[in-house]
Amino acid sequence: MQIGRFKDQEKTFYGIINGDIVTALEGGPYGQIKPINQFYRKDQLQALAPCMPTKAVCVGLNYRDHAEELGYPVPEEPVLFIKPSTTVIGPGEDIIYPSSSNQVDYEAELAVVIGRTCRNIGVGEAREYILGYTCGNDVTARDLQNKDGQWTRAKSFDTFLPLGPYIITDLDPGNLTVDLRLNGETRQSSATNNLIFDVFSLVSFISGVMTLNPGDVVMTGTPGGIGPIAEGDRIEVEIQGIGVLENGVSR
Amino acid sequence: MQIGRFKDQEKTFYGIINGDIVTALEGGPYGQIKPINQFYRKDQLQALAPCMPTKAVCVGLNYRDHAEELGYPVPEEPVLFIKPSTTVIGPGEDIIYPSSSNQVDYEAELAVVIGRTCRNIGVGEAREYILGYTCGNDVTARDLQNKDGQWTRAKSFDTFLPLGPYIITDLDPGNLTVDLRLNGETRQSSATNNLIFDVFSLVSFISGVMTLNPGDVVMTGTPGGIGPIAEGDRIEVEIQGIGVLENGVSR
Repeated sequence: MQIGRFKDQEKTFYGIINGDIVTALEGGPYGQIKPINQFYRKDQLQALAPCMPTKAVCVGLNYRDHAEELGYPVPEEPVLFIKPSTTVIGPGEDIIYPSSSNQVDYEAELAVVIGRTCRNIGVGEAREYILGYTCGNDVTARDLQNKDGQWTRAKSFDTFLPLGPYIITDLDPGNLTVDLRLNGETRQSSATNNLIFDVFSLVSFISGVMTLNPGDVVMTGTPGGIGPIAEGDRIEVEIQGIGVLENGVSR
Repeated sequence: MQIGRFKDQEKTFYGIINGDIVTALEGGPYGQIKPINQFYRKDQLQALAPCMPTKAVCVGLNYRDHAEELGYPVPEEPVLFIKPSTTVIGPGEDIIYPSSSNQVDYEAELAVVIGRTCRNIGVGEAREYILGYTCGNDVTARDLQNKDGQWTRAKSFDTFLPLGPYIITDLDPGNLTVDLRLNGETRQSSATNNLIFDVFSLVSFISGVMTLNPGDVVMTGTPGGIGPIAEGDRIEVEIQGIGVLENGVSR
């Protein structure tokens, strides 16, 4: 199933996508999914970020080649940081390049969308708490990340978490290709079977620290090949079985 | 003005406190404050955390003596980290000691409560965006902080952000004593005139990174004297002009 969040004139709503048609849902996609008798042509709607997380919990250095390119050791346990809800933008929206940074990088990532309240769960249960998967871009002000030591400021600027286009619910996250194109040219190309900590291990680990709410996002880390973006760039994150998340960059 | 959040049987509401009497508000304390004709005796209500932040943005190493006791250099700019909404507890609630840590510390801090949406504001405007001040405890799993390098996991366990008891709106934050008592014994004792970056500078700086929402909290850093807590302990954070935030510890 493909689930999106949409805007039609003023109203915003969640919907299920079947080909060119979107069927609206009563309420959100958490808990029981209730389609209602409201149908739209997809090309007449604006797709928004497909969820509204209270937080995105992100994992650093979860691909060996990325840890190596940054000169960090490969971690023994997942290294966590948080992107606040205010970082989220949807497909087609621009990443705003902040004036306080001189190097902003893309980071293509598989984003996990939590389906129900999740606390202290085991690895074997994690699948039941996941609604689905979408594409994410963990945009990072690399110069500030290096300056601060702590990663939060560098990762938390408004617009630094593009998500979308849709949530795919029936997907095995174990071996999906993850690609990033900058102005049409491939810059990152890997697959989730290269993750050091897999999706279910991450959700379990994080749930042992903090409660995950419906709609919260777990960002699973980026592969090697990160690099800078500039005003006017066009960035595409493509994940197998999900689709393409495209965003521009402006100041 | 003293503003609290309260629970009466099942209902929760914001209210203004005058002596022993609480006057309920219509909606929240953000924007125009509208008292309604509902009065309660304060001692018959349970005080909850006085706000429900979408995020708490915290500043590390903002007292010189604390940076020194941890062996960190004094920072040139504020060092930020985020505690998620799921960390918040109210007065009288227990901090839950996580099984994955062997050293959990208290950290008494002045907490700033944001009153209206705040983005890219100057230092001189910051006061207008602040609703008021309350006591906070930036509970930290010190062993995990040292192990991870990144501070997020160590700071983000559920219950690791006691806030309260009330928000005080008419307060100059420039020189307030900040004390912490562990089982009645003073362990931290400083004042906000020792802050490296003052309240208005912090709110301005953070607003240049991420939008602050009404109810969001800025934690201003802890003075020297941090130390471990244990099951059964009683922790009091007292800030001049605000009051005492008391919490227990359990497993």
